[in-house]
Amino acid sequence: MHDYIHPQREVEFLLQQVLGLSQLCQREGGEAFDADLLPVILAEAARLASEVLVPLNRSGDRDGCRLGAEGVEQAPGFREAYRQFIDGGWNGLTASSAFGGQGLPNLVGFAVDEIWQSANMAFSLCPLLTQGAAELIATHGSDALQREYLHHMVSGQWSGTMNLTEPDAGTDLAALKTRAWPEGDHYRLSGQKIFITWGDHRMTDNIVHLVLARLPDAPAGVKGISLFLVPKYLPGKDGEPGEANDLSCIAIEHKLGIHASPTCVMSYGDHEGAIGYLIGEPHQGLAQMFTMMNSARQAVGLQGVAIAERAYQQARDYARQRLQGTRPDGSRFTIIHFPDVRRMLMLMKAATEAMRALAYAAAAEADHARLVPDAEQRGRHYARLELLTPIVKGWCTELAQEVTYLAGQVHGGMGYIEETGVAQHYRDARILTIYEGTTGIQALDLVGRKTLLDGGQALSDWFAEIETTLKVLEASNALGCRGVGLRKALDAARVARAWLLENATRDPAAAGCVSVPFMMLLGYLGGGWMLARAALKAQEQLDTGEGDAAFLQAKKATCLFYHEHLLPRTQGYLDSLLAGSGSVMAVPEDQF
Amino acid sequence: MHDYIHPQREVEFLLQQVLGLSQLCQREGGEAFDADLLPVILAEAARLASEVLVPLNRSGDRDGCRLGAEGVEQAPGFREAYRQFIDGGWNGLTASSAFGGQGLPNLVGFAVDEIWQSANMAFSLCPLLTQGAAELIATHGSDALQREYLHHMVSGQWSGTMNLTEPDAGTDLAALKTRAWPEGDHYRLSGQKIFITWGDHRMTDNIVHLVLARLPDAPAGVKGISLFLVPKYLPGKDGEPGEANDLSCIAIEHKLGIHASPTCVMSYGDHEGAIGYLIGEPHQGLAQMFTMMNSARQAVGLQGVAIAERAYQQARDYARQRLQGTRPDGSRFTIIHFPDVRRMLMLMKAATEAMRALAYAAAAEADHARLVPDAEQRGRHYARLELLTPIVKGWCTELAQEVTYLAGQVHGGMGYIEETGVAQHYRDARILTIYEGTTGIQALDLVGRKTLLDGGQALSDWFAEIETTLKVLEASNALGCRGVGLRKALDAARVARAWLLENATRDPAAAGCVSVPFMMLLGYLGGGWMLARAALKAQEQLDTGEGDAAFLQAKKATCLFYHEHLLPRTQGYLDSLLAGSGSVMAVPEDQF
Repeated sequence: MHDYIHPQREVEFLLQQVLGLSQLCQREGGEAFDADLLPVILAEAARLASEVLVPLNRSGDRDGCRLGAEGVEQAPGFREAYRQFIDGGWNGLTASSAFGGQGLPNLVGFAVDEIWQSANMAFSLCPLLTQGAAELIATHGSDALQREYLHHMVSGQWSGTMNLTEPDAGTDLAALKTRAWPEGDHYRLSGQKIFITWGDHRMTDNIVHLVLARLPDAPAGVKGISLFLVPKYLPGKDGEPGEANDLSCIAIEHKLGIHASPTCVMSYGDHEGAIGYLIGEPHQGLAQMFTMMNSARQAVGLQGVAIAERAYQQARDYARQRLQGTRPDGSRFTIIHFPDVRRMLMLMKAATEAMRALAYAAAAEADHARLVPDAEQRGRHYARLELLTPIVKGWCTELAQEVTYLAGQVHGGMGYIEETGVAQHYRDARILTIYEGTTGIQALDLVGRKTLLDGGQALSDWFAEIETTLKVLEASNALGCRGVGLRKALDAARVARAWLLENATRDPAAAGCVSVPFMMLLGYLGGGWMLARAALKAQEQLDTGEGDAAFLQAKKATCLFYHEHLLPRTQGYLDSLLAGSGSVMAVPEDQF
Repeated sequence: MHDYIHPQREVEFLLQQVLGLSQLCQREGGEAFDADLLPVILAEAARLASEVLVPLNRSGDRDGCRLGAEGVEQAPGFREAYRQFIDGGWNGLTASSAFGGQGLPNLVGFAVDEIWQSANMAFSLCPLLTQGAAELIATHGSDALQREYLHHMVSGQWSGTMNLTEPDAGTDLAALKTRAWPEGDHYRLSGQKIFITWGDHRMTDNIVHLVLARLPDAPAGVKGISLFLVPKYLPGKDGEPGEANDLSCIAIEHKLGIHASPTCVMSYGDHEGAIGYLIGEPHQGLAQMFTMMNSARQAVGLQGVAIAERAYQQARDYARQRLQGTRPDGSRFTIIHFPDVRRMLMLMKAATEAMRALAYAAAAEADHARLVPDAEQRGRHYARLELLTPIVKGWCTELAQEVTYLAGQVHGGMGYIEETGVAQHYRDARILTIYEGTTGIQALDLVGRKTLLDGGQALSDWFAEIETTLKVLEASNALGCRGVGLRKALDAARVARAWLLENATRDPAAAGCVSVPFMMLLGYLGGGWMLARAALKAQEQLDTGEGDAAFLQAKKATCLFYHEHLLPRTQGYLDSLLAGSGSVMAVPEDQF
């Protein structure tokens, strides 16, 4: 059995040295958190993860969940684990203290969430969704709904779900058919929803479904979608779960991975109609969903980081143990000494650190966007958050595929045997580029709403900041490369941005054809930028004699590896982008 | 249920127009085959595949195989399917008529094998291994062994296996422990072998194991390995299977994919020792295995092509059916109209055609190396075959990962649900970069035995041939790109070759660090070269008014797409290679 060890030193270095958590906490509104507590919080979370969640990862994969007469039965051990999780107060780490949360900075919550996701992705999807649903209710729900639901959800006594997809309406929410109609102080709903993660289970006393549906007078398309809160059990006068609502899980999916996370087909209103409560105004459902997309998409990007870290650790440990070379004297050595294995491990390590750094940097923007006193500055931080979100989701989850793939590759034949567990990471990771908007959807968001809409302004601002880091890198020779790779990548990104602004409106297919290469280019650039910042900070500490020299030297070497071996990929994406839509669209449909 | 349709027009165009099958057949020794029969053979194979093998692909994945008291029970329906397969004479298509085979060109056998592998990879591994084992016996076995075994194996009445790996000896065969000792006119063997594909089952009357073991007087390391033929049942005087040998399957692996292919732990000699027969001379086992590696590795590369084709077809069919866009007038359209979906399908199509073309070109070299009258020319064809083999195995199987991945991506959420079957292709494909030598092993073979050993001569010869194609491309504007992408890729490959020849001996780690990027660079180049040859041939036909114009135009467009969107990846591999071993080896083991 492989043990997951949280990379605490790595995370602390990133939060404290690179992202300046302490300064963040000194800002107005951020005082509540004493950054010195960070090591204790991370260590406590890591302990719970190792002792309780890690052991259930393999068994949950094997056992999966079952649909019985009473609904979904989660995998054995999960209920008890969930109890320990919420008893520790982990569910409400970043939620407002008004509802029993601990009000910690988003960045700290993010670092803790990585631990859960590394330990057991299937399990940790449940709190991930609850937190997202609670955030949405806190933002858009009426005071009454907030009072009735949020305490329970923040504590984790009740869980939450998101109900968007229907059999004929996935990416295209305009085709959504679930109906809602008013009845007294509430609504009734009827319809079927699919792909509902943790849509049913017995880990919590109640499940709060957030459901997109159409009101009778709704305009056609996405402008006619409203959002409803539909509890599994209707709260009684005492606030406790009472009568069962008219909804049920009628099937669960047999999936490639995350077997312990029930993916439900939910049926609403088979009888008199499920009782639901409108959230916010009618027909605003999509906009409301969008406000929580930043955090949900970042959370999925973080899952990419987390599973990459887990897979990397397992490959590294295997490579250190596996004897598979014989010296001329007959003695044997481990495979970590083979250059190609070392190359794969370096790739996994560099990619994972780059993903983490970029994802955490985006998470910090959410704190800045909330805490910075100046409104204009807050706006800029929010724009950066908006810009980075599809990149974090799209690029980190794509790169996580490669890292989990290489983990299997390091294992050789054992990588294909389920017993080792490394194949599970590969299977689990596969969902990440699909749910919460596929990679293609992230890329369209990046191109459309985040680049073309503001004329490329947020992108220019980001490039200017990268340029600042790059100037320092070019002036120093801390890395021995003087920023050559990063310079080429930044130049490529600038050319790509200019090309897009010029061509995307002229050629309607162009934006769609080049969006994924564009996003991947920016992801690699962002990762290279963050690793450069980390390396420069490491050099600073080395110069002043602070910190662990071996760790700091490795930071520099990892950055150099990334710049030499991963950043060059940006050139291929640029060439692909510059080719535009021509050969992508040239073959007629019947010649496929 | 997705139906697989063999892309016969595509394959015929490649064999007849691009690879000149007819000319090949006119050569001495090749006369036996009338190239006009090709369409009939392909259509017959495709019919059997569709009717018999395709329906068992999903059920085989679900049912898997079982280890019972009597040995391994293959998946339901497989025995009957196998019977139909061998009754059709398909097992001995390319085998010598001396043993009941049909003596068809290797290239034709290769084209037919693609069909089996697309239809049902788990099933088709059984004949793949039988054919490899028969080839080895035909090359190295004594006349007596050939007489006793080959007819049965060529007909497929008996199957064959390869027994190399042991728990402590995978890539490092020097560590092999299975013992053999002489006894009368035969040997006895004792030891355990793992990862034995189709090591036990009940589809055939006998199973012929080829087993690597050490004789008592064997030198240490790989120079002390001998090869033995060890039948499951010892043939009686009548030549039919008689007494059971002292061997058994003691466990089967629970794998990520190819569930219907039993991966066995084989135990030899638990009692008095398993009876075996030495093949060739003592201590020559590894060399003997190597002579069959070209065909085995090409066969696995072909599996990459085959599963990519299968996954591509499924994604294409889904994209054509799946309504997921709404026009302003409320009507809906299918996702194949989305530019990013079109980009993914084009990538899959172009990659699959490029892989196929390169793999088939290598297979044709095996025919040339056998049939060309001039010995020196034969030598050059053999050198090309040797050069291309690790590229076909390494690059095609790596690219097959991306194609099967994208097939899931096109399916969106349905790509993660096992029911659609697209996830199975992804799981099945995952073995391809591992078995028959991992990607890293292929790359080391390419760098060491195929490049450094002959001072880069075979590579130069290949580049010169690519240069010839390129000159034609640059002189015409058939593609509208004048070969820009291919020129850059060829230049990159030349720089990479020169760098390797200069640095690999000076820096011992360099070859290992850069080998995979080097191999991938050459693979993309080779694919681009073959698609250019196809496109030029298409233009020729268009100019003369032959053939289906729409098909020929699509050939050109597909080539252009590949040159614009896949060839640029070569630049990233070149940059990575030129960085050498520095940052790959810089981080000490304890900092991982």
